[in-house]
Amino acid sequence: MNFASDNWAGAHKAISERLVAESGKYWTPYGASTLDEDVERKLSRLFEREVKVFFVATGTAANSLSLAAVKKTGGIIFCHADAHIIHHEGGAVEFMTGGAKLVPVSGDSQGKMSASQLEKTMARYPGDLHIGQKMAISITQATEAGTIYSLDEIRALSAAAKQAGLAIHMDGARFSNAIAALDVSPAEMTWKSGIDILSLGGTKNGCWCAEAIVFFNPEQARDMPHLRKRGANLFSKSTFVSAQFDEWLKDDLWLKLARHSNRMAAQLATAVAASRSARLAWETGSNQLFVVLPDETAAKMTAAGVPLMQWDTPEAMEGRLSADEKIYRFVTSFATRDEDIVQLAALL
Amino acid sequence: MNFASDNWAGAHKAISERLVAESGKYWTPYGASTLDEDVERKLSRLFEREVKVFFVATGTAANSLSLAAVKKTGGIIFCHADAHIIHHEGGAVEFMTGGAKLVPVSGDSQGKMSASQLEKTMARYPGDLHIGQKMAISITQATEAGTIYSLDEIRALSAAAKQAGLAIHMDGARFSNAIAALDVSPAEMTWKSGIDILSLGGTKNGCWCAEAIVFFNPEQARDMPHLRKRGANLFSKSTFVSAQFDEWLKDDLWLKLARHSNRMAAQLATAVAASRSARLAWETGSNQLFVVLPDETAAKMTAAGVPLMQWDTPEAMEGRLSADEKIYRFVTSFATRDEDIVQLAALL
Amino acid sequence: MNFASDNWAGAHKAISERLVAESGKYWTPYGASTLDEDVERKLSRLFEREVKVFFVATGTAANSLSLAAVKKTGGIIFCHADAHIIHHEGGAVEFMTGGAKLVPVSGDSQGKMSASQLEKTMARYPGDLHIGQKMAISITQATEAGTIYSLDEIRALSAAAKQAGLAIHMDGARFSNAIAALDVSPAEMTWKSGIDILSLGGTKNGCWCAEAIVFFNPEQARDMPHLRKRGANLFSKSTFVSAQFDEWLKDDLWLKLARHSNRMAAQLATAVAASRSARLAWETGSNQLFVVLPDETAAKMTAAGVPLMQWDTPEAMEGRLSADEKIYRFVTSFATRDEDIVQLAALL
Amino acid sequence: MNFASDNWAGAHKAISERLVAESGKYWTPYGASTLDEDVERKLSRLFEREVKVFFVATGTAANSLSLAAVKKTGGIIFCHADAHIIHHEGGAVEFMTGGAKLVPVSGDSQGKMSASQLEKTMARYPGDLHIGQKMAISITQATEAGTIYSLDEIRALSAAAKQAGLAIHMDGARFSNAIAALDVSPAEMTWKSGIDILSLGGTKNGCWCAEAIVFFNPEQARDMPHLRKRGANLFSKSTFVSAQFDEWLKDDLWLKLARHSNRMAAQLATAVAASRSARLAWETGSNQLFVVLPDETAAKMTAAGVPLMQWDTPEAMEGRLSADEKIYRFVTSFATRDEDIVQLAALL
Repeated sequence: MNFASDNWAGAHKAISERLVAESGKYWTPYGASTLDEDVERKLSRLFEREVKVFFVATGTAANSLSLAAVKKTGGIIFCHADAHIIHHEGGAVEFMTGGAKLVPVSGDSQGKMSASQLEKTMARYPGDLHIGQKMAISITQATEAGTIYSLDEIRALSAAAKQAGLAIHMDGARFSNAIAALDVSPAEMTWKSGIDILSLGGTKNGCWCAEAIVFFNPEQARDMPHLRKRGANLFSKSTFVSAQFDEWLKDDLWLKLARHSNRMAAQLATAVAASRSARLAWETGSNQLFVVLPDETAAKMTAAGVPLMQWDTPEAMEGRLSADEKIYRFVTSFATRDEDIVQLAALL
Repeated sequence: MNFASDNWAGAHKAISERLVAESGKYWTPYGASTLDEDVERKLSRLFEREVKVFFVATGTAANSLSLAAVKKTGGIIFCHADAHIIHHEGGAVEFMTGGAKLVPVSGDSQGKMSASQLEKTMARYPGDLHIGQKMAISITQATEAGTIYSLDEIRALSAAAKQAGLAIHMDGARFSNAIAALDVSPAEMTWKSGIDILSLGGTKNGCWCAEAIVFFNPEQARDMPHLRKRGANLFSKSTFVSAQFDEWLKDDLWLKLARHSNRMAAQLATAVAASRSARLAWETGSNQLFVVLPDETAAKMTAAGVPLMQWDTPEAMEGRLSADEKIYRFVTSFATRDEDIVQLAALL
Repeated sequence: MNFASDNWAGAHKAISERLVAESGKYWTPYGASTLDEDVERKLSRLFEREVKVFFVATGTAANSLSLAAVKKTGGIIFCHADAHIIHHEGGAVEFMTGGAKLVPVSGDSQGKMSASQLEKTMARYPGDLHIGQKMAISITQATEAGTIYSLDEIRALSAAAKQAGLAIHMDGARFSNAIAALDVSPAEMTWKSGIDILSLGGTKNGCWCAEAIVFFNPEQARDMPHLRKRGANLFSKSTFVSAQFDEWLKDDLWLKLARHSNRMAAQLATAVAASRSARLAWETGSNQLFVVLPDETAAKMTAAGVPLMQWDTPEAMEGRLSADEKIYRFVTSFATRDEDIVQLAALL
Repeated sequence: MNFASDNWAGAHKAISERLVAESGKYWTPYGASTLDEDVERKLSRLFEREVKVFFVATGTAANSLSLAAVKKTGGIIFCHADAHIIHHEGGAVEFMTGGAKLVPVSGDSQGKMSASQLEKTMARYPGDLHIGQKMAISITQATEAGTIYSLDEIRALSAAAKQAGLAIHMDGARFSNAIAALDVSPAEMTWKSGIDILSLGGTKNGCWCAEAIVFFNPEQARDMPHLRKRGANLFSKSTFVSAQFDEWLKDDLWLKLARHSNRMAAQLATAVAASRSARLAWETGSNQLFVVLPDETAAKMTAAGVPLMQWDTPEAMEGRLSADEKIYRFVTSFATRDEDIVQLAALL
């Protein structure tokens, strides 16, 4: 039982076993194998249009190289104030882009910014030489707060980006969970809603280490081969990533795993609702729950060996917690089992 | 049968299967798990002293981040003119170091530079503000030309580095093959011979994707956690790398695999010697052979489905090939089988 | 008559004429001349302790290289939300530091942040690998909003910086005006109040192009010679900068010019107070005034050939302007004459 | 008397006095003044076509930003092995370009590379992902060895660049001296011979601090405003540079000064030829002479207060100096007087 994050679990067995099956073969290295191409084709099919795909090792690489591909000197990237790219990439986005500035946009609802909030912030950046040129918008779907942008919300943000002549990137570390929650197609949630570049995360949803940068406009991908190599993320045995994705895509494994983890989160939410000690800090909809726990309950859990992830209290929650309460994040994954929920519920 | 490079094969079965065994577990992410620590301890044991280890995804990352850790503004790195870091990293070393200059040192023997050649080149860089500050020496062991530095040669280069106050780094993408060939201990070939930082390659010797930066002086590693994160090479599920290394180290699997590939290369060398059409371009000693083939033989091989890697004719070989001859690189690996050699020999 | 900024005027005549006097001499280039050393000694005398000085071409260079000298990978710099370094350097700070993140701190009073606001923001950055390491605090004195930190306020910010183990930098583009306004010594306003590094601006106070990076702790300056050269800001004829500073320091010319421009601003403030159409948006104390003008008055001024600089309405001023009012910045300088004030007053 | 370099002298009096004349005026800052535009127009006239001009502070800035404008990720720049950009910019080119690799081309004649030598070196860089993409050629005119490319030689190098699809840049720190020596027009020596981007140096030829990046194809200049600002080389009082250039261009002052310094060098060459102790190391043609001096003569000069610049003995000169001889560089400038030559000749 572990709800600390969806990157603590190993990998789905089908994916590990696929690597065993591949281990005895020879493949052209450095992303040029027929398997790499095959998976790219499958992703084109998934997204219902030709896409250009680049496999990388980490979500950090996917995000920072995606944004580096936009290529504006001294550029400015707008994102939610709690976005992973601004608050948890250790400066990788700034570094890979040659020094882009990440500007936080505040949002009313947890993890999400609205088009009007975005536009208000952008208005401070008219784009002269000193202020610098606006470059891109980045949104996270599902967000860092577990919430999910509706298609309408994404379209409004894309429209604001296009209006300003900017590229729009989606950090899809938990893309699968958002798709499962919204029950829309990958195409609808991305390019049909105006998204230009996607960081497609496999790692948090059953893979060992498999992230893909997906360009919906192949033209924007032109420099990416060089960016990825210079960014030390071109694998020799790149089929070890493409094989993971191949297995992940097979029979919609990715979607089944995401539905599973969302369902586990829903069960956990029910358990929280039924608990006398705990309550949800806010509604999410994906595989991340934010739960208010009294210190006593938290202590009990820790004593029971459950690793707890305390969450900074967002401004909007200030004054809504008693002195002995804190917010904790609980994340379910492909590996969460019914009995884990039952066991956790017993502790609540 | 494939001799194009030692990164075309998948992975050793034991390593893939270890990943299956790990797939159902939970581990603390981002390099902080007990498995990560355990493998670090095992590497300390292997190197007979405390080492600080950082797992990364690619050899490019290992080399570029190793050198970035040396931290000299506008620094100058000296390496052999054919070194991978100067000729095949797509600018990653320059990028990760914030713009270091890589200065080629010419060598008489294939792939190797001597201490006196190094010193002669360094003399052009007295280190004023304009020329810039000397920063590091990097040597490749086994070299890109398949040759191997003796311990005495390494010690002489280290002495030159220390004399100039510089760090010395070893690109050990084929570290195992060099150890197997020299029959010395990892400690002897590294810190006991003056090496400060090692890029330890697992990928070319049986792993899927496992490289480690090894610091023999933990003090020099101080900034590496941040460099690796900013360089987009910190894995969430980092145990998928440490598990590969754990298996690789178990019962000296790494050494057995390296001995195997060296032996396969030696058998191939024998076959070349026995051939009427082919001859060795130069002696190597590791798992890379450089073979002079007449165009006719090369065509025959290509027709037989053997991917051939043509090699630029080094200056020292100019005038020593006839018009219809070229040099090709043949690399053996953990995956090479006796019958592959037999089959190839039949084509020679 | 021109109040657009203090960088529209040419240079003080004494400074230009000094350049004529120097024009026929030979000096050792690249900052190594006896004049360079002499001016460094004079600055040590001015600051009442040994300082290490680096002349550069632009305020952007002074700020970005000052912060680059702090040298933390993926570092985080805290500054006021309206600071020049975060909002008007075109990404130079991010670039020169190899990708530092600039984090805005909000302040109640125009242009200034308090130690408690700083600490509250810093608390969001505990410094793990993902969030990145805190690196420096930067304050502007006089601020971009014309206000001036008291010594107590500076000391409180320095204490917060030291407490967190961070360097503290002062952007002194208008250092002279702050000294003139506070009537304290340069030592008191800098290192005696805890400042580590100063961008000392000559350009806005009578020079053509003369900025100096001043280190109060010579140890921190160690890498600066290389940073400045790599940052393309090492002059061959560096005496053309040191000569400007030499003249600027002679008989406290810098202080006289700053007092003059502050006095001109005070006269203008009096004129604004006496005007029926205009009013001060907020009190400043330095040579920058922020004036609320009705559109009609602004139009009249523009018609009279006065270049106007409209200022973004700060949040704190929202609701305090009528629909036909906007805020404009008026800056006085060494070149402002009494008659300019009289003439402008006539338009108010 | 000083022959150490052409950046030891101050500035031509006309240029210093022009700064006095400008000192009392107001100008729009940051390169947007009518004077900036006026000088750009004059440069367009000088070059006989529309050019886009960016003033910067240092030759290092001119060279590094020129090449940064070419914008290829992990790009490769080819230049002579002794080029200033590869050997004396302290890593600025690597830094400003985000990590370009500078590849040295060897040349038979001092300071110059031939098209065939360039092509031979380029052939080692076919441009795959690992080797990286070729980006630009850079030549220095007059060269670091005082020699001068003929128009035919420049055209051959440009043709090789175009053939490879690369931009070609001219480091014109001593552009004026080359024009004076070849007696051709600025247009002929640049874009009419295929040059794309020019670093036009004023500093070594009479200015205080005035360098210009000149784009013959305005399209390539598109990102330069942002590159220059991010590179900390955008002046507020940019008219202090444009005024220098304005004066420099007036009545061909630049050409007169260059002819003067070349003539001084020719007189010095005559004196060297007449001397029994000294001899020219090689012919140059510009304002730089390389003179072989016995240690005894060198000691006499040093004793007489003449700063001497020893030059590394080039490979081609090895074996052609006796044990007690070394090569020294003597540079004349706008400031060199007939009596300086007479005085120096007396010491030879």
